[in-house]
Amino acid sequence: MFALTVRDRMMIAHSLPHPAFGPAQALHGATYVVELTIRRAELGEEGIVIDIGEATTLLKDALADLDYTNLDEHPELAGTLTTTEALAKLVADRVADRLPAGLYAGLDVTLREHPDAWATYTREL
Amino acid sequence: MFALTVRDRMMIAHSLPHPAFGPAQALHGATYVVELTIRRAELGEEGIVIDIGEATTLLKDALADLDYTNLDEHPELAGTLTTTEALAKLVADRVADRLPAGLYAGLDVTLREHPDAWATYTREL
Amino acid sequence: MFALTVRDRMMIAHSLPHPAFGPAQALHGATYVVELTIRRAELGEEGIVIDIGEATTLLKDALADLDYTNLDEHPELAGTLTTTEALAKLVADRVADRLPAGLYAGLDVTLREHPDAWATYTREL
Amino acid sequence: MFALTVRDRMMIAHSLPHPAFGPAQALHGATYVVELTIRRAELGEEGIVIDIGEATTLLKDALADLDYTNLDEHPELAGTLTTTEALAKLVADRVADRLPAGLYAGLDVTLREHPDAWATYTREL
Amino acid sequence: MFALTVRDRMMIAHSLPHPAFGPAQALHGATYVVELTIRRAELGEEGIVIDIGEATTLLKDALADLDYTNLDEHPELAGTLTTTEALAKLVADRVADRLPAGLYAGLDVTLREHPDAWATYTREL
Amino acid sequence: MFALTVRDRMMIAHSLPHPAFGPAQALHGATYVVELTIRRAELGEEGIVIDIGEATTLLKDALADLDYTNLDEHPELAGTLTTTEALAKLVADRVADRLPAGLYAGLDVTLREHPDAWATYTREL
Repeated sequence: MFALTVRDRMMIAHSLPHPAFGPAQALHGATYVVELTIRRAELGEEGIVIDIGEATTLLKDALADLDYTNLDEHPELAGTLTTTEALAKLVADRVADRLPAGLYAGLDVTLREHPDAWATYTREL
Repeated sequence: MFALTVRDRMMIAHSLPHPAFGPAQALHGATYVVELTIRRAELGEEGIVIDIGEATTLLKDALADLDYTNLDEHPELAGTLTTTEALAKLVADRVADRLPAGLYAGLDVTLREHPDAWATYTREL
Repeated sequence: MFALTVRDRMMIAHSLPHPAFGPAQALHGATYVVELTIRRAELGEEGIVIDIGEATTLLKDALADLDYTNLDEHPELAGTLTTTEALAKLVADRVADRLPAGLYAGLDVTLREHPDAWATYTREL
Repeated sequence: MFALTVRDRMMIAHSLPHPAFGPAQALHGATYVVELTIRRAELGEEGIVIDIGEATTLLKDALADLDYTNLDEHPELAGTLTTTEALAKLVADRVADRLPAGLYAGLDVTLREHPDAWATYTREL
Repeated sequence: MFALTVRDRMMIAHSLPHPAFGPAQALHGATYVVELTIRRAELGEEGIVIDIGEATTLLKDALADLDYTNLDEHPELAGTLTTTEALAKLVADRVADRLPAGLYAGLDVTLREHPDAWATYTREL
Repeated sequence: MFALTVRDRMMIAHSLPHPAFGPAQALHGATYVVELTIRRAELGEEGIVIDIGEATTLLKDALADLDYTNLDEHPELAGTLTTTEALAKLVADRVADRLPAGLYAGLDVTLREHPDAWATYTREL
């Protein structure tokens, strides 16, 4: 199995309005360093999983309407707790929707919120 | 599948008294940067794998009697070669014993002993 | 010259309401990884610049009322553009105010806002 | 399952003569930071997956005729697009050929070409 | 004193044809992770050393004709040993030529060639 | 001014027998990631501050009798509190003693004891 990973980031504001989140219930923010891994069983004739430029664009597009925003005001996220895990799934599903069927085995999205904590969502394709 | 990782560290002395270990047979030490990953198939209503604070506490508790000690004198480790692999398993099993049954899919513990070498133990739950 | 550095972080929301800041004029957020370096010409009898625990506490105290907040609503920052540079100076000045006179040569505070950009403020003591 | 990872690097020149690669069709180069992970179900009496020194030597040997060279002129690579993915497989297969049968479960090789892109090849043993 | 740093990279081929360089006399390559630091005594009304986007563009422009090339064939570098130190100076001088006079105190350029070696050139403005 | 940095590590046991050090008074250990920076005003005809291989050897030699040892039993360190700061100075002075006079401007040695704390000693030559 082969895998190709590209990395980008987004800088967002949000709050986590549930008693479980302690001080993170207040409006605060994060730099999420985002890693997108695409898995593929065999390489094509170009010898790659996916073009790095194409993967970078897919990831950037998936982050575009989130970066430099307040997620609390994002229509698509109304009523959603925008935890690191939920955002990882959102980004992964957005990328999955853009990939051609039948070519890739799966993908992972990791969001690093600070040096000592990160979350990953893994799905098949 | 979702995964949440938290990171901590411990600073220990130990020796590895087996001819296989060359200079590491002598008493020396290490900073182990420790990463605990907890996996879970579906998120609960809070949208998280596990609370980051709770995961951090679980990890810190698992390291508490090891950090700032000489592992050669630790009663629980008498007769054990405290390799990076063995310590990764020890930490993972300690955390597993504290997690509720039926909620999590598995966990990984990685111990990084220097920038160019690390070990991971992976287990189901 | 000796220097001791400790590292912490804060997760904040803010906006930068000045035309120079493009998309960062909107409310967004950041994880700032914060490094505090304290410089001292000669070590004391304990052989240290400053106790790591003490330096860590100084830094954590300087960040306490900023972490997990919206800086746009912080009374002390009203009318201030909370750029990375300005926040580095704020943290540095807060730490400097708490250090005893005559012992230390100076300090630096670096705030890393994402993997490809960071700012430092350096001052004498 | 246990895993042990060691890290090394190689500094190579190459070109990727296929229209898909845009500016990378020209002769350029890379520092590849290479991570070799060896997996094993159970530890032996020494409490390790494999000796770190031995794993480091295996990796260094697998890189020896590539490091500080122009891959375009390497006889074994004639006609091969030396993508990061293809090189990861080459290194993994070379290491696999040197490992004793029946002891290890599998291995992964990751090549990091810059801070924002890397590829991994995973195989069983 | 304030400083703002931005980071980019370039992937180049080159050789170092001088007996001092051992195996690096042959054509090989490197990913150089490049950090540009601009220093300024006081902040302007925008509260910044320099706009991050502007600094990023300055750095990218300074690397543009080097990235994805064979430095041995670069007209401007004919007869130059393209050591990490020499390239750091080249990038720094290019950026310095583009900065307005009288505003900045100095700049540093660091080129990281692999995880265990890097060079910096520092100059006043 | 030019600077060249190389990086190595040592894995040591030690204790810090002074009441100021709390739990670190007990025998424990550390991986010290060690960075040696050598500064030089002008490059020689080879276009380098110092050969990377030579700098790497200088650093490795300075660490050789410390790595994989218990510093509490090192004759040269009897009666010394082996703090990170003191060890940084020891390594720096050892390297300085081996460098030719008149060629270099100064050097820095940084010892990183864990991801959130490190110390540097800076001296002229």
